[in-house]
Formats: sequence, C-alpha cells, structure tokens
Amino acid sequence: MINEFELIKQLQSLVQGLDQTVALGIGDDAAVIDPQLIPAGQKIVIATDTLVCGRHFLEQDKPEDIGYKALAVNLSDMAAMCAQPKWLLMNLTLSDIDEQWLTGFKCGVGDLLKKYHVELIGGDTTSGPLAIGFTVLGLSSQPKKRSDAQAGDLIVVSGELGSAAFALNNPGHNADCDTQLKRPLPRFDVSEAVKDFARAMIDVSDGLVADLGHISEASELGATIHLEKIPVHAAIKNDPHWRNYVLAGGDDYQLCFTICPKDVDKLPADCAVIGHMESGAGVHVYENEQKLDLEQTGFDHFG
Amino acid sequence: MINEFELIKQLQSLVQGLDQTVALGIGDDAAVIDPQLIPAGQKIVIATDTLVCGRHFLEQDKPEDIGYKALAVNLSDMAAMCAQPKWLLMNLTLSDIDEQWLTGFKCGVGDLLKKYHVELIGGDTTSGPLAIGFTVLGLSSQPKKRSDAQAGDLIVVSGELGSAAFALNNPGHNADCDTQLKRPLPRFDVSEAVKDFARAMIDVSDGLVADLGHISEASELGATIHLEKIPVHAAIKNDPHWRNYVLAGGDDYQLCFTICPKDVDKLPADCAVIGHMESGAGVHVYENEQKLDLEQTGFDHFG
Repeated sequence: MINEFELIKQLQSLVQGLDQTVALGIGDDAAVIDPQLIPAGQKIVIATDTLVCGRHFLEQDKPEDIGYKALAVNLSDMAAMCAQPKWLLMNLTLSDIDEQWLTGFKCGVGDLLKKYHVELIGGDTTSGPLAIGFTVLGLSSQPKKRSDAQAGDLIVVSGELGSAAFALNNPGHNADCDTQLKRPLPRFDVSEAVKDFARAMIDVSDGLVADLGHISEASELGATIHLEKIPVHAAIKNDPHWRNYVLAGGDDYQLCFTICPKDVDKLPADCAVIGHMESGAGVHVYENEQKLDLEQTGFDHFG
Repeated sequence: MINEFELIKQLQSLVQGLDQTVALGIGDDAAVIDPQLIPAGQKIVIATDTLVCGRHFLEQDKPEDIGYKALAVNLSDMAAMCAQPKWLLMNLTLSDIDEQWLTGFKCGVGDLLKKYHVELIGGDTTSGPLAIGFTVLGLSSQPKKRSDAQAGDLIVVSGELGSAAFALNNPGHNADCDTQLKRPLPRFDVSEAVKDFARAMIDVSDGLVADLGHISEASELGATIHLEKIPVHAAIKNDPHWRNYVLAGGDDYQLCFTICPKDVDKLPADCAVIGHMESGAGVHVYENEQKLDLEQTGFDHFG
C-alpha cells in the first residue's frame, strides 16, 4: 500500500509557509489543535463528506478535477456556515497506485489548499474502491444554522443555479456550465459579505427546492420562491429540462440564505432575492404568478 | 438514499443524556464546537480511519462487530495519544439499505459511544461500495507523540500480542483470540495509568515491529526487543506461525510505549517491558539472546 505519510507530506509541501501555529504534527496517530491559540469568540466548525467513484465522479474524470471538486464540496459547507476553513483531514481509498493519477489529484487538492490557506493535518490511505473523504475544520465567529430563518425573511441565492445540472446532461455544450460542474467555487466571497446579517444559510448541493426545504423544515416555516427571479445562465434555457436543473439540480454550490428585508441593500452584486419565508410549511414555487405542481412535474430529488 | 440525519439521530438517541455542552448541533452543514468551553490546558486531538469491506472486514461479518470494530480502531488512536474521546463524525458508504444490517451496525457503534461517552456530532451517508469512515475528536492535556522516545528508555507493551492475527488465521479455535480480533478494547485504562510518565506511544495496529519502527524512526533511535518477554496467549504457540503473529500481526490494538527506567514500578499490572531504545536505527528482535533475521524470515509487513 502507498505510504500515507509520504502522500500527505507531498500535499503539505504544496502549502508550506502557511500559518502552522495552531495545528501540530502529522505522521502520528492523530493531529493536535491547541484551543488556547484560537482567537476569542471563534467557534470550531467541522464538516465531512465522502465522494464515491461512479456516483459523485466518474473514473474517466481528470484526477485534477476529482481532487478539486471533492475538496470544493467540503469547503462549500464551510462557506454555508460562514466559517473560514483552516485544517483538513483526507481519507483516500485507492483501487491501485497510479502515480500519474495521484500527481493530478494532488494538483487539484493543492490548488484549493493554497487558495484558501488550508493546512492538511492528517488522514489515512487504504486500498479499495476509489473514494475520497474530506473532513474540514474551520473557524467562525457566528456559524449560520438552517433553523434561524424568520417569517417575513427574504430568500436570497448567490450566482446562477442549474448550470452544473445542465453541464451534467449536456457535457461540452457550454464552457461556463462545464466549469461550474467540474470546478465549483465555494462562495466565501458571499458568506464573508453577508455574515453580519444573514440568518439561516445552506449551500445548494442537492438542488434548490431540497436545500431550501431543509431551511424551511429546520425553521418550521414555509418558503415561497419565484422561478423567474432565479438567475440562470442564458445557455440552459434552450434545454426543455431547464426548470428541473434550476429547481432540483444539485452541484452548483451556490449559497441560499435568508435575510431581514431591511438588510436587502447590503447584499453584494452577485446575489438575488427569489422569494420569502412565511408561516406554514414546505417550499412553494411560482412561475409568473402560476404555482408549479412539483409533485406532478416529476422533478428529481423532490419530496 | 437513506436519510443521513435520521440515521445519525437514531445513533444519537442511543447516547442521550451525555454532556452536550461543548458540541452543538447536527443536521446542519457542519457541526460546531466552542473552544471557550474546553477546559484550560486541554488540546484537541483528531484521528481518522476508513475501513473498507473486503479489506478490513468481510461482508459476512456480523454488522454489530463491523460497527464496533470500525469505531474501536479509531478510539484506539485516541488511547495512543493519551486523549479522552469526546466527539465522533461518521461517514457511511452503503451499497444498499438493509434495515437489519443497519440495526446491528448501530448496536455495535452505540455500545462504544455509550461506554466511552462519545457524542456523535455529524457525518454523511452515501451509496457505493460498503465502507466506514470515522473521525474522532478528543481532548488531551499531554498528547503523546511517536518522536518522544529517548535512548535508554524501556519499551513496554500492554496486554498480549498476536491474538488477533492467530484468530484471523484460525477462526473459531480460541474464543479469547476471536474476541481480540472482532471486539478489540481500546486501552484507555493503560493510557490513563501511564499518561504522566509515558514518552513515545503508538497503538499496535499494523504489527509490533512495524509500529515500534514508527517510534524508532520518528525518535531517530534504534529499538531492541526480546521475543520471550512479549506476553502472548497460550493458545497461539501451537501454531507454527506464532512468531509472525506476535511480531507482525496487526489488529491487536494494544499500546506500545517507552518510559524512563526509573518509572518502571509505576506500570500497571497488564504491561510488560520487552526491550529498550538505544542510539542507532531500526528494530532488532532477539529470541533467547539469538538475533532473529527479520528480512530472511519473510514476515509480512516488515521493511
């Protein structure tokens, strides 16, 4: 089996020079973080996700893209908590040792480690069907919860929705959408800009209706949104399934959050108000004042 | 796909009533720990391990045993750091939803969560080839490193070695050994008893020579041990491969650590001095004053 410490050291060497005062050591049974060195008022936020070959990515995908996306998905959870990512643990299950594949994978992971100044502090490698598990630890002064929406809140999304689902079904048709699918950017720019006034927040990984449904359920409120207010890439509207991509397509890793109406002017440019929270339950979608029957429409992921 | 929050809530319900003052929330994008609530002087220790079906356990193994062992292996890393386990993240990859299997699995995991008062704070479930990833976070006032052995230190092991490897090769021959393989007990009793004076420490997961080799390498010292001083179960000596089990068999999850000779009287009953650290490099094994040639003997895992 591959020497896991060697692999992890190689990845660490990509990010040398970063602040290493808080997390100590690799190559031991465990990594160590000293809570006394964490700035006052900051909480530790921990997110974990596993990506399995054949389900979350394909064997023929570029290893750079696989590594990038596996980490981006986890970093997006940090953005959704308004947390700054700090430390990473990597669990790598490899079916064989392909040096060229590993080099590509390391590049993809390393790109994001460097970009966001994240330190790899531990992990393990094992042999088996290809899968990647990342556990990210970050710091946040005000971690956002799904349950903090209030009746009357506006519902906001960042960026455009549906691009990744379009690209999954139409690979190679539009470069922007392909990039959104393969190289999603965790929206730390947005979470940083809205952290002082956003209430409930989630990232759109499973599809807008499903993820907004989590906010709705956790906050014990209903949500009404208007399809025509959701920003979408011009390219996707030619596809007859575009509504499905926008409402039920996952993998965009944009942020969906609620704000008090008085804060609407503080929103950054790349954010759009698409609806509001209200008493009741469930997510209700309108298109030009006409209510869409989501059950009947047969969208994926719903229910 | 299975509802991961439902599964995690079910597991949490097994351990209700535990202290939940430090870690907050599940069912969000991430779990949150407040470092201000961690007692002064305690460091956060993080260990992660993935167990893959067909490699670390067999499909026909009882789900209770699979769940138990997957967690025990991770808890053992906590013991090897002299840390108290506090929080758990679970990444479960399931090939199908078998309620009976899940019930058994939850029992195995729940047994250990309850025994050691560990709180499940997050995780994910996904579909794919069966694999279990656990990330354990614990607290330690003095986390032990592999690099802290000194020349002249005595080398100590807890319990008996080789039992798990014997059981793997001779299933059903000896109940004690079968238990050691399927239900290893993380040696928190030993780590607690020796935490004030143990220097370098590791758990014996890959085999004594390999794991002591990690201490030797990290501490830049040689290690000499005497086979006849290593406690072994009476049953295993009938097997012609018993030396291999003792020296190279993994999976016993006993502790191996070094101490200053002056502290030898403080060792608990279940510990044995098996050798000493010295200047030089590598692990040297003697049997009745005769040096064993490990390379020639063809033991697994060596080198």
